[in-house]
Amino acid sequence: MLEQIVQILKDVRARTPLVQAITNYVTINDCANILICFGASPAMCEAAEEVEEFAGVISSLYINLGTLTEEQHRAAVLAARKASEYGRPIVLDPVACGAISRKKEVSLELLDNARISVIKGNAGEIKSLAGWAGKVRGVDSLDDGEGAVEACQSLALQYRTVVAMTGKTDIITDGRRTCLVDNGSDMLSLITGSGCMAGALVAATVAVADDRVISAAAALAAMGVAAESAAEAAGALPGTFRIKLFDAIYLLTESEIRRRGLVGWL
Amino acid sequence: MLEQIVQILKDVRARTPLVQAITNYVTINDCANILICFGASPAMCEAAEEVEEFAGVISSLYINLGTLTEEQHRAAVLAARKASEYGRPIVLDPVACGAISRKKEVSLELLDNARISVIKGNAGEIKSLAGWAGKVRGVDSLDDGEGAVEACQSLALQYRTVVAMTGKTDIITDGRRTCLVDNGSDMLSLITGSGCMAGALVAATVAVADDRVISAAAALAAMGVAAESAAEAAGALPGTFRIKLFDAIYLLTESEIRRRGLVGWL
Amino acid sequence: MLEQIVQILKDVRARTPLVQAITNYVTINDCANILICFGASPAMCEAAEEVEEFAGVISSLYINLGTLTEEQHRAAVLAARKASEYGRPIVLDPVACGAISRKKEVSLELLDNARISVIKGNAGEIKSLAGWAGKVRGVDSLDDGEGAVEACQSLALQYRTVVAMTGKTDIITDGRRTCLVDNGSDMLSLITGSGCMAGALVAATVAVADDRVISAAAALAAMGVAAESAAEAAGALPGTFRIKLFDAIYLLTESEIRRRGLVGWL
Repeated sequence: MLEQIVQILKDVRARTPLVQAITNYVTINDCANILICFGASPAMCEAAEEVEEFAGVISSLYINLGTLTEEQHRAAVLAARKASEYGRPIVLDPVACGAISRKKEVSLELLDNARISVIKGNAGEIKSLAGWAGKVRGVDSLDDGEGAVEACQSLALQYRTVVAMTGKTDIITDGRRTCLVDNGSDMLSLITGSGCMAGALVAATVAVADDRVISAAAALAAMGVAAESAAEAAGALPGTFRIKLFDAIYLLTESEIRRRGLVGWL
Repeated sequence: MLEQIVQILKDVRARTPLVQAITNYVTINDCANILICFGASPAMCEAAEEVEEFAGVISSLYINLGTLTEEQHRAAVLAARKASEYGRPIVLDPVACGAISRKKEVSLELLDNARISVIKGNAGEIKSLAGWAGKVRGVDSLDDGEGAVEACQSLALQYRTVVAMTGKTDIITDGRRTCLVDNGSDMLSLITGSGCMAGALVAATVAVADDRVISAAAALAAMGVAAESAAEAAGALPGTFRIKLFDAIYLLTESEIRRRGLVGWL
Repeated sequence: MLEQIVQILKDVRARTPLVQAITNYVTINDCANILICFGASPAMCEAAEEVEEFAGVISSLYINLGTLTEEQHRAAVLAARKASEYGRPIVLDPVACGAISRKKEVSLELLDNARISVIKGNAGEIKSLAGWAGKVRGVDSLDDGEGAVEACQSLALQYRTVVAMTGKTDIITDGRRTCLVDNGSDMLSLITGSGCMAGALVAATVAVADDRVISAAAALAAMGVAAESAAEAAGALPGTFRIKLFDAIYLLTESEIRRRGLVGWL
């Protein structure tokens, strides 16, 4: 699978997918910058009056519910419907859907009214959407990982989608094929936006490869390997780590992916 | 008082308070990152439909009026009322209330309708709320400090709250006990968000200690000491300083607080 | 012209213009920080209820349409009208107006209802406003530069304004006098917000100098020279470059402008 991942990462750089993001204002800058460093072209087009027109030119759509305003909510529904019509892949990041009812409602509204290609979330979020009791605290997951694979598979089958659960080990599945990614760094938990950035990168990879499981895995492996490099360069300094993470995503080489990548089928 | 401050900073790290922030979009990312580095768990939950439910799980609430949208305004009022009901401490950052009428009106609306634990502002903001003529220019205070202590004490007594005025010397008072913090760096004025980040940290410390004067002082002392370290590491480079400030807050040790802390009762 | 530029940059630092910005949430933090590093005082005052009052105290207004919310749209129209009444210079950054109809409509609404001092955009945006067919992709211009000068001059004459088109060579013109700036770095395309930051700096320079062509050129030359320094310091690392860009703007000296500045009349 590593060779397929290497190819997908090359394709992102070669094809510069135009990734539209409707995302929270906490990490919107980070998402734009990491997409550029990854080789994609970000467009934070999020006005309700604009998104239907814009759907005609995008490569993929990333929807993150972090600080969803009413206007973003309207735009997200319109954008997702139109992107579905055009066959553009959509990545849904159901931030805090395990802790806040509205977040879960909007997540289900999007799942019911659009063709979501990948749901990317942490254990608490995915378990909540799957109808399992996840352990959450605010926007963070405190889940211990028990039943994680089953929750992902069940959610994926229910919505005929791919589920990518981030955590110490990332789990990516379409319900039948399940892939694990073991890259990453504890430093990712010391910055805000690591989950959002991972989700944005998934939107870039699914834009260039039809196999959603492997393309989502490619994004999470890239994020994980880059985080490892950044942590080595930064030491235990969260501010410095965050800057070096952008550098590391930009510098990521094929040989680094081959050497460090810890991916495999379950 | 230094030992009490050391204990409060330890308690933040040990208890990881969940700090909800309804804050401006200029520095929302900085506030989230500094809270994580400080040992708290930030949640920028700010939708009107979400905040009442979320009030049940938070440790404290930080409200910053910097770029207050209409939706944030509605949410802030609801969140503050509910947090008051639940007895969660609330920190109000009345940004630009000395320069813009609406900012002052919303500040007074919140003070009248909720139990504000700490008002954190610069001299211009605090004097304006206290009904004194402050010197302001846009969002910055040009105040020379005259009458600062009296303005803080008067405002604190008027609203039975704690007032934390940031400046060359920070003043923290409940109207009877007044504490001064002399840490800090001129570099803080070369980045946006130093006031917002200080306010967010106050929301973290008041979540773990009942004495609001000392807990607010702990947050401002931590910010000031970290700024001194960051300035030493960065030199006169504002971009670099901003990154090293996150590192410095994360690295802050008890011995550093004891060695550098310049705090005392008036 | 270099000496005039040096003088304008000195005047910004000496007079600290209060630059109000109504700008997108992707790079709002970058715009605030770069304005501080440049010597200006940023105020992201953007609520419809606040902008008319605030127009009385500002030095200039920067309007960027990047993620224009409905509330920002209302505020921008009110702010631009009031700033025109008060004679404050206004810089319009018509982000994505070549790709999204609403962006072009709002740009024209502002041009028709306010006195815009400078339109700052990339080739795709300027050509679109000028009624020429530009090549755009999302928010980025793919324009090859053909006919760029003519498009700028035509647009400037049409609206009796100054047009500043950023690109490999920046073009600044009032339709009669045309100035070129050849500074910059490819690294600027590896971060989000380089265009927004350039626009914000133009708002700072037009606040201190009546000659809009030379003052816009001064801002773009400063941005370009700083980018060259930052790229030398950072190497090909986008995350690091972004931080060093703030440092470089802050460190910019007269001699550096004189030594590196590549500006001239067409």
